Amino acid sequence: MSTSKPRTAPAKKAAAAKATKSPKATGVRRGLVEQEIYDHATRLFAERGFAGTSFQDIADAVGLTRPALYHYVSSKDELLARLVAEITQDSAAGIQAIADRADIDVTRKVHEIVAMSVRRQAESAARFQLLIRSEADLPEDIAATHTAGRRAVLKAMAGVVEEGVKSGAFRPVEPRVAALGLLGMNNWVAWWYQPDDRNDLDRICEQLADMAVASLVQPDDRAVSRADPRDVLRLVRRDLEHLEELLDN
Amino acid sequence: MSTSKPRTAPAKKAAAAKATKSPKATGVRRGLVEQEIYDHATRLFAERGFAGTSFQDIADAVGLTRPALYHYVSSKDELLARLVAEITQDSAAGIQAIADRADIDVTRKVHEIVAMSVRRQAESAARFQLLIRSEADLPEDIAATHTAGRRAVLKAMAGVVEEGVKSGAFRPVEPRVAALGLLGMNNWVAWWYQPDDRNDLDRICEQLADMAVASLVQPDDRAVSRADPRDVLRLVRRDLEHLEELLDN
Repeated sequence: MSTSKPRTAPAKKAAAAKATKSPKATGVRRGLVEQEIYDHATRLFAERGFAGTSFQDIADAVGLTRPALYHYVSSKDELLARLVAEITQDSAAGIQAIADRADIDVTRKVHEIVAMSVRRQAESAARFQLLIRSEADLPEDIAATHTAGRRAVLKAMAGVVEEGVKSGAFRPVEPRVAALGLLGMNNWVAWWYQPDDRNDLDRICEQLADMAVASLVQPDDRAVSRADPRDVLRLVRRDLEHLEELLDN
Repeated sequence: MSTSKPRTAPAKKAAAAKATKSPKATGVRRGLVEQEIYDHATRLFAERGFAGTSFQDIADAVGLTRPALYHYVSSKDELLARLVAEITQDSAAGIQAIADRADIDVTRKVHEIVAMSVRRQAESAARFQLLIRSEADLPEDIAATHTAGRRAVLKAMAGVVEEGVKSGAFRPVEPRVAALGLLGMNNWVAWWYQPDDRNDLDRICEQLADMAVASLVQPDDRAVSRADPRDVLRLVRRDLEHLEELLDN
């Protein structure tokens, strides 16, 4: 569809950026154009699949000639590599950063990790779905990056579960299976989340994070998780919402 | 790959079945051949995608000519329709059957539904992944069946969660979001389960079902009837007192 009217507003911006030669502006503008190209490419990959999108399609969508596009990116693989890095490697790094925090207990870690992952899935649903759909079509080196990223995500998540089991905060679950269960809960968000009236993203993150914690904690360890005033406030807020529903009906 | 040696053992069986004219045996043999065709077709769909598999590819894999294959199935759409029905409609029916049971409580229902769904995902992982990957390529009427099946699964699952919230057995979660969270936990199994040493399917089903139940049930100290606003207010008052203590210390 974008091929029929190639010179869109971003396309003009891109062309303008290319025409400008001021050395000071170049870095910023180059960044903007590259972001523009990346956004168009990921949208096309999502619509047509990675294999079904050519370098020319991307040039058409951005409103650049093929040679002009080469000025910014060397191949569609480069764009795909960035997408894979964003989806899997950044996820793993984000989870590990929370796992490494010394200022919160393991229950809070699980809560924060799930809330963060659910938000990430909701906000990049199309790109995440695309990646899963295209797994079989990925060039070999990018597939390797993707697999390494998925493994790092699982390792970080299973590590937190194991920490909780060892400390006695969590029930004696098998950490790998528990981590895969929680990752499934998070990842599936990309398949059902739509930004609409039914879906308040803050509440969804909060509820799934609560469920994840509850799925793991020792039943008699509730007192521990209530040592933090924020956890108590969360319980109160939930009860007030429930009360509101009861009185509305 | 199967095109290079089309006349495999099942192919000979299929040809033999076709040649046999005994009316008594026909029904059984026809069934066997149809199963053979279905198995080959789903494997090809999984390997090459639905759009990338032709009717001729299926004929080659089974070792039948195209006209002979027409004797059993009218099109590849017919095979795909059966696959969609098995994956989504049968799932929905299975969940609803457990939801309707009067002999078990709602906690047990969630346990049985999740254990059943996880097993189903593990046992038809390739077919489930294929369906998710091919969603965009499905012919319109089959896509409609698929969507209806997915909705029925969600409705049955959310119904059980709602039953639990109303009875006070579950925390006051939003049933649809909770159902989607649990379905994610189940569906993701198709992406990671491999029948190998690390994965004892019985234990995986049991652990994920336990986690699903724990993610929903009221901790013991909150297991009061929450249908009465006064009970909810009492919980809120207790939590506020607890909060006061925390902040005083």
